[in-house]
Amino acid sequence: MTELKTGGAQGYLRIATEEAFSTPELVEAWKEELDNPDADPGFKSLVGFYITHQGERPKWVFDRLQDLGEKRIADMDERGIDRQILGLTSPATNVLRNADRASIIAEMANDRLAEACRAHPDRFTGMAACAPQDADRAAKEIERAVSKLGMRAVIINSHILGEYLDNPKFSAVLEAAEAMDVPIYIHPNTSPASMIGPLLEAGLDGAIFGFGVETGMHALRLITSGTLDRFPKLQIMLGHMGEALPYWMYRLDFMHQAGVRSGRYEVMKPLRKEKVSNYLRENFYITNSGVAWEPAVKFAQNVIGMDRVLYAMDYPYQCPAEEVAAMDAMDMPLEDKKRFFQTNAERVFKL
Amino acid sequence: MTELKTGGAQGYLRIATEEAFSTPELVEAWKEELDNPDADPGFKSLVGFYITHQGERPKWVFDRLQDLGEKRIADMDERGIDRQILGLTSPATNVLRNADRASIIAEMANDRLAEACRAHPDRFTGMAACAPQDADRAAKEIERAVSKLGMRAVIINSHILGEYLDNPKFSAVLEAAEAMDVPIYIHPNTSPASMIGPLLEAGLDGAIFGFGVETGMHALRLITSGTLDRFPKLQIMLGHMGEALPYWMYRLDFMHQAGVRSGRYEVMKPLRKEKVSNYLRENFYITNSGVAWEPAVKFAQNVIGMDRVLYAMDYPYQCPAEEVAAMDAMDMPLEDKKRFFQTNAERVFKL
Repeated sequence: MTELKTGGAQGYLRIATEEAFSTPELVEAWKEELDNPDADPGFKSLVGFYITHQGERPKWVFDRLQDLGEKRIADMDERGIDRQILGLTSPATNVLRNADRASIIAEMANDRLAEACRAHPDRFTGMAACAPQDADRAAKEIERAVSKLGMRAVIINSHILGEYLDNPKFSAVLEAAEAMDVPIYIHPNTSPASMIGPLLEAGLDGAIFGFGVETGMHALRLITSGTLDRFPKLQIMLGHMGEALPYWMYRLDFMHQAGVRSGRYEVMKPLRKEKVSNYLRENFYITNSGVAWEPAVKFAQNVIGMDRVLYAMDYPYQCPAEEVAAMDAMDMPLEDKKRFFQTNAERVFKL
Repeated sequence: MTELKTGGAQGYLRIATEEAFSTPELVEAWKEELDNPDADPGFKSLVGFYITHQGERPKWVFDRLQDLGEKRIADMDERGIDRQILGLTSPATNVLRNADRASIIAEMANDRLAEACRAHPDRFTGMAACAPQDADRAAKEIERAVSKLGMRAVIINSHILGEYLDNPKFSAVLEAAEAMDVPIYIHPNTSPASMIGPLLEAGLDGAIFGFGVETGMHALRLITSGTLDRFPKLQIMLGHMGEALPYWMYRLDFMHQAGVRSGRYEVMKPLRKEKVSNYLRENFYITNSGVAWEPAVKFAQNVIGMDRVLYAMDYPYQCPAEEVAAMDAMDMPLEDKKRFFQTNAERVFKL
């Protein structure tokens, strides 16, 4: 493998669009929640692993999550990453029952992230955290984070205490993102207690499979419920090659239309754009976080669109330099590779 | 669209490998179970729809499910289908708490299906039903159905009262399929009560999305639990383009290996073939039931193997003639199209 360098000598900058960090306040709240006997089982599985496991990988991940300075930038340099688009790591504050505390932690995370972005304006760009448990306050925080702190997206780590963004109680959040013209990145979370049973039993609740189930379903709900008809300009971002929705696209269209025709579900009405795939192609951006695999990248570019597939690394959870090299080596015209690694991100995040 | 004809004039026969039927005994048992106040919520959603809904599509589907003669063959002729590989439709007897009754219904279904296959040996091939609720009896029925009735596969409609085939209680079933050298087709079912919550709430529990979640997870459990190391010759079939597992393959490998290294889960031990993808390429066949979509067919052929992707229609649930024409029209060498439509099925089902 040739050395990976920043600076764009290969013909494009590498902008990694789904990179994670944490804050001391969040870790503190997580530790308290881990002691709650009624804590969400997926939360206990996921955060319990990274906070308490003594294995080399979880310890390294947990350490790097909490760095927004030198260690992170050294890792970026080593892997040839010019810029990270940063979001508060899963499940962030989504698991906290106290909406006030959740809001405060999200707001402090935005302040911390904004400070890091100011210190390293050529290396970091921020996505705003928020606590939809208090939707009006979350909407105000999105406005503040975008207009005052320079954030260029909103990140929401899937379900909020078992509820999804198609629930009208969260409308203010979607309205704010649409009004501020920033995408919402729906990042994975473990499934809520009402869904995690057989996944957790088999050890499949996390990134190996359950994350995709949870997050693909969340995104699909925004389409089939008509939520994106209520917020037609809203753009949704999904990592992990679109959480498999591009691969399901034909079946989603066929069965959605059959379901709408039959009136089987009260919650599934005709959509303005008719087909699920029209939303995937017009309201979604997809990143390859965790999937440094040429066949899947090309498949998504082919069926969703070359301008809607972006590079991501998933640092610090998954960041082998070999994966950067594999994406560099894709058999793809340089101009398309530049859109993938650089210019799509520059457009979406207004860099 | 040119007329679709049987007989192979296009250079191959069309063998549809995931086609459904039902029996009067099964429908009777379903109707009783629908009256059970504790019935599985996914079962009520799925079977309740097809049995009671007065819409055109569910009525037509329910009628055709119960025909193993003239109407079915006329539909096949009209769509250019030379042969159907038939399985007892979902959720079959998997939802019945009385193991004895479930076994009897499965055995009677096999007798009925065998009779239809004898009456139309050039048009129908059978997959054996069984009721894993009584695993030893199910194993004996698989032996009988293969050796005496000429069945060429076993069909199991995913979870059995909330349990999965990696549970050692079902070992006799897997052992019988391996010993009789027939694949097990894991057909979708709705997710069990412990998983269906947010899917059902959003109307996504069925074929549009939940089926894939349930069935992909079931198949993955057989790999990650080490079950396929206990039955290394066993072949598993999946419809719907592999329930998205081919698209997830890179992430499955990466996160499975990370999980095994960390020892995070007691149930996730190192595997003999090391990578999840090795099992997908050596122990799985994939059909395109419900997904008449060239990009997904080619993707799976590319990453799983040309000899492991088979044609299916999903009759009577999804059977527009246009879908047959779309598959005929794929931009693919005739020899590969023949493997897809005909010779892979001939080899797998020993036709």
